[in-house]
Amino acid sequence: MKLHGKSVVAGKAADSTAGFFNARGDLARFEEATAELVHQAFDEANPAFIEFRRIPSERRAGFLERIGEHIESLGDELLTTASTETSLPIADRLVGERARTVNQLRMFAALIREGSWVDARLDKAIPDRRPVPKPEIRRMLIPIGPVTVFAASNFPLAFSVAGGDTASALAAGCPVIVKAHPAHPATSELVAGAIVRAAGETGMPAGVFSLLQSTRNEISIAAVRNPFSKAVAFTGSLRAGRAIFDAAVSRVDPIPVYAEMGSINPVFILPGALRERAETIAQGMKTSVMLGGGQFCTSPGLAVGIGTKHFSQFAEALQELMRNAPPPTMLHAGILQSFEAGVERFRGIEGVRMVASAVDTDRGKAEATPAVFAADFETFQKHHALSEELFGPSTLLVQCSSREQMLAVAEGLEGHLTATIHGTVEDLMEYADLLMILERKVGRLIFNGFPTGVEVCPSMHHGGPYPATTDSRSTSVGTAAILRFARPVAFQNFPQAALPVELQDANARGIWRLVDGQLTREPLQ
Amino acid sequence: MKLHGKSVVAGKAADSTAGFFNARGDLARFEEATAELVHQAFDEANPAFIEFRRIPSERRAGFLERIGEHIESLGDELLTTASTETSLPIADRLVGERARTVNQLRMFAALIREGSWVDARLDKAIPDRRPVPKPEIRRMLIPIGPVTVFAASNFPLAFSVAGGDTASALAAGCPVIVKAHPAHPATSELVAGAIVRAAGETGMPAGVFSLLQSTRNEISIAAVRNPFSKAVAFTGSLRAGRAIFDAAVSRVDPIPVYAEMGSINPVFILPGALRERAETIAQGMKTSVMLGGGQFCTSPGLAVGIGTKHFSQFAEALQELMRNAPPPTMLHAGILQSFEAGVERFRGIEGVRMVASAVDTDRGKAEATPAVFAADFETFQKHHALSEELFGPSTLLVQCSSREQMLAVAEGLEGHLTATIHGTVEDLMEYADLLMILERKVGRLIFNGFPTGVEVCPSMHHGGPYPATTDSRSTSVGTAAILRFARPVAFQNFPQAALPVELQDANARGIWRLVDGQLTREPLQ
Repeated sequence: MKLHGKSVVAGKAADSTAGFFNARGDLARFEEATAELVHQAFDEANPAFIEFRRIPSERRAGFLERIGEHIESLGDELLTTASTETSLPIADRLVGERARTVNQLRMFAALIREGSWVDARLDKAIPDRRPVPKPEIRRMLIPIGPVTVFAASNFPLAFSVAGGDTASALAAGCPVIVKAHPAHPATSELVAGAIVRAAGETGMPAGVFSLLQSTRNEISIAAVRNPFSKAVAFTGSLRAGRAIFDAAVSRVDPIPVYAEMGSINPVFILPGALRERAETIAQGMKTSVMLGGGQFCTSPGLAVGIGTKHFSQFAEALQELMRNAPPPTMLHAGILQSFEAGVERFRGIEGVRMVASAVDTDRGKAEATPAVFAADFETFQKHHALSEELFGPSTLLVQCSSREQMLAVAEGLEGHLTATIHGTVEDLMEYADLLMILERKVGRLIFNGFPTGVEVCPSMHHGGPYPATTDSRSTSVGTAAILRFARPVAFQNFPQAALPVELQDANARGIWRLVDGQLTREPLQ
Repeated sequence: MKLHGKSVVAGKAADSTAGFFNARGDLARFEEATAELVHQAFDEANPAFIEFRRIPSERRAGFLERIGEHIESLGDELLTTASTETSLPIADRLVGERARTVNQLRMFAALIREGSWVDARLDKAIPDRRPVPKPEIRRMLIPIGPVTVFAASNFPLAFSVAGGDTASALAAGCPVIVKAHPAHPATSELVAGAIVRAAGETGMPAGVFSLLQSTRNEISIAAVRNPFSKAVAFTGSLRAGRAIFDAAVSRVDPIPVYAEMGSINPVFILPGALRERAETIAQGMKTSVMLGGGQFCTSPGLAVGIGTKHFSQFAEALQELMRNAPPPTMLHAGILQSFEAGVERFRGIEGVRMVASAVDTDRGKAEATPAVFAADFETFQKHHALSEELFGPSTLLVQCSSREQMLAVAEGLEGHLTATIHGTVEDLMEYADLLMILERKVGRLIFNGFPTGVEVCPSMHHGGPYPATTDSRSTSVGTAAILRFARPVAFQNFPQAALPVELQDANARGIWRLVDGQLTREPLQ
């Protein structure tokens, strides 16, 4: 497919005259979007919103599924393009990520087809109640308005143009303006084409989707500050996420920002587990650290244990495994630079020892050297930099000398996406207070597993207290992600015909509703 | 009861040396809280949180109910104190508000006793799934942490120290630090005493509740910016709410702010309704405007109709009724001053006519003159000040000359708590697009009623797009208010004994849970 190299406004390639940028692989040169294009996209999104939100869920579900079909029908071209741009391998990784992306679209289609997500609540009138009559009230969730989505670099499909943010926003009934990640503009253009074709074929308003291609911060900020932009979803670094958050909350009318940012995903390895299976844990840790070249939000960047010979066994095994790990090619040169700078920062801290792979890396190919750092409790507690995310194939081992030190490490943590505990059942009972501390610090707790691999399902929570995200109440993975883009509205004493179908007596869609405080799928008597 | 005139930190009256303030009625002089007291309150709240969140819901429910009992047992002293401080009448108003306050506490007690509010979701493991096994994931809502509550002046009980914000935060498992409203410090002290006694009797940690008495903005900001403060609830003016929001989002770690602020609660009166019952609507409008001296968040400050003889009938009837309305005594002198300044601002706008009561008011008693303003469509559209809230006993009538003008007024609205439509069923069909526009603008829509009177029930939504609130996804009234103070946490592959009772297989509490995507109260097989 020939690439046009342009932003897409309301379904059409849009000319721009603000210069060009190239991505890795030089598949095409891409026009930098102008601020004017940003505003055109929102000027189209706003009237599209009015139409789109009225389209029955059944048809909106069909639109989502059709996007998935078009992504699949892009076939090998999509995979090879994504691989060229990101250096991620096709087999396993990109094939799997494509499946995940399509499955997410299908999951949200199924969710809105079933319909109960709108959290419908009906309270009947009591006209003769004293001292005042009780009115009839019915409420449900409605879409919040056009949503700005910032695509991530590390998942060119699943957290990008048609990823979970876009899927959940469209499912909620919100038009989406995607700011593509400049590290994979060609992949973005291909996926945008799939969305545009699906919108056309299923009769959606063209303004329901736009794609902005840009390397410039001011374009991102213009999108966040556009008056028609009603919510923002973002996956990326703390620095970029916070800049977007600050722009959104300083608007005349602040809007919610769901930024999923850094996380070190600490792993606590308890004594019983170390005694039983130090080397197995090291093997799992190495696999998790190296997944995607260490470029996962859930990559475990910290392992904490109590200094025994078993912890030394674990550390030695992990170091050996990491030394022999092939150097991964990073997503782009900028990430490699940041990783290397971070490695130097860690190395510069007194008390931190580093074990790195001896293999030669090809810097031209942006290959990174996997690294394992080690520090004791005192060093870790003294240097805040050690608890900041180092994005890439590395992890830090912290050796405590007591249970109390381990608890102090946990208590000192900021917000993270996940925390993991390796232990026996006896460990878990003995360290019950560790679990209680970690519950306050993270969005997901894992027992005897690893944080990478974020299952897409109703119970998944992919979020966490700041700085893991800017909104600890939200998840960017799983069905609950749709709740980010909806707000309640209540109807008081309206006639049946004026109510949304979800709130009418008949309950024609058969959804679960809270009627006078009781969950039921029955129609109202 | 003798008043101590102090802030309350973790259940104890706390000395302060930053000066004093008096409230109306001079029931006592009150010590101004220092910033140090603020920090002491949070230093107590944080460890109390760790204990409080682990207390079973059944006992937390008992705590809430006991607060209600102690409020009731304060008897007439509470009512006379509140009436002295706010000038609100005891009969009907304060008696009713006390009942509402106690009912809210009972409602949240019932909600957490039933338990399904935690939105438990369980997905079973599929160990043999390809290409990767599916882990077991279980998630539920947990409390967010200590909550700062800013009490409102206009509801000295129901939106104050033990009002809906405090009740919902405690129900969620969050300690509460209330910044009392300085217009009713004695009432606040009495209610704080009820909470402290209830906490002691039901075995809650003392740090679960503190009360800050202050007239100073810097004390409010210190509470918002305290590192242990994890969420803020506020009811009051746009200016104060925005200042608190700005302080919260500019923290190193931003926290959510649920500020319920201004609203003009527009009323659209359609032609059929005017033909049928212009004078009845005028009667209802006058009652709604004058409720609580016009000092309700949901007071209807704007009525829009199409200029016919029926609209003139409505306008004349309303003017006559308002002219004869007794002047209400305002909550405090500051509100009267703001109201009078607002009246002058409206009068100064060319094209605005004013009809006011001829009665003499006693300014020493802070009595306000009810006012009706009238303007045509062009004047309204030209002057943004006319669509800003004028807090007090007044309303503005806007006469349009066409359906299109009425739709333009609706489209031009900012966010409000409510919008009301008066019409026949035929009107509603003819003006279906009006309803669609208003859905995008407000949190609650009322048909053939009035916005005052906010029913406390599961389906109530008391919120709306900015500037009605700082978070359109939240409500400050009704059971859903608890969701403001909770965030999800997911547990992956944990043994039963380590899981919260709500997520264990047995479902001992019998709550509704989403198991593999299906709602059920059954235990897991």
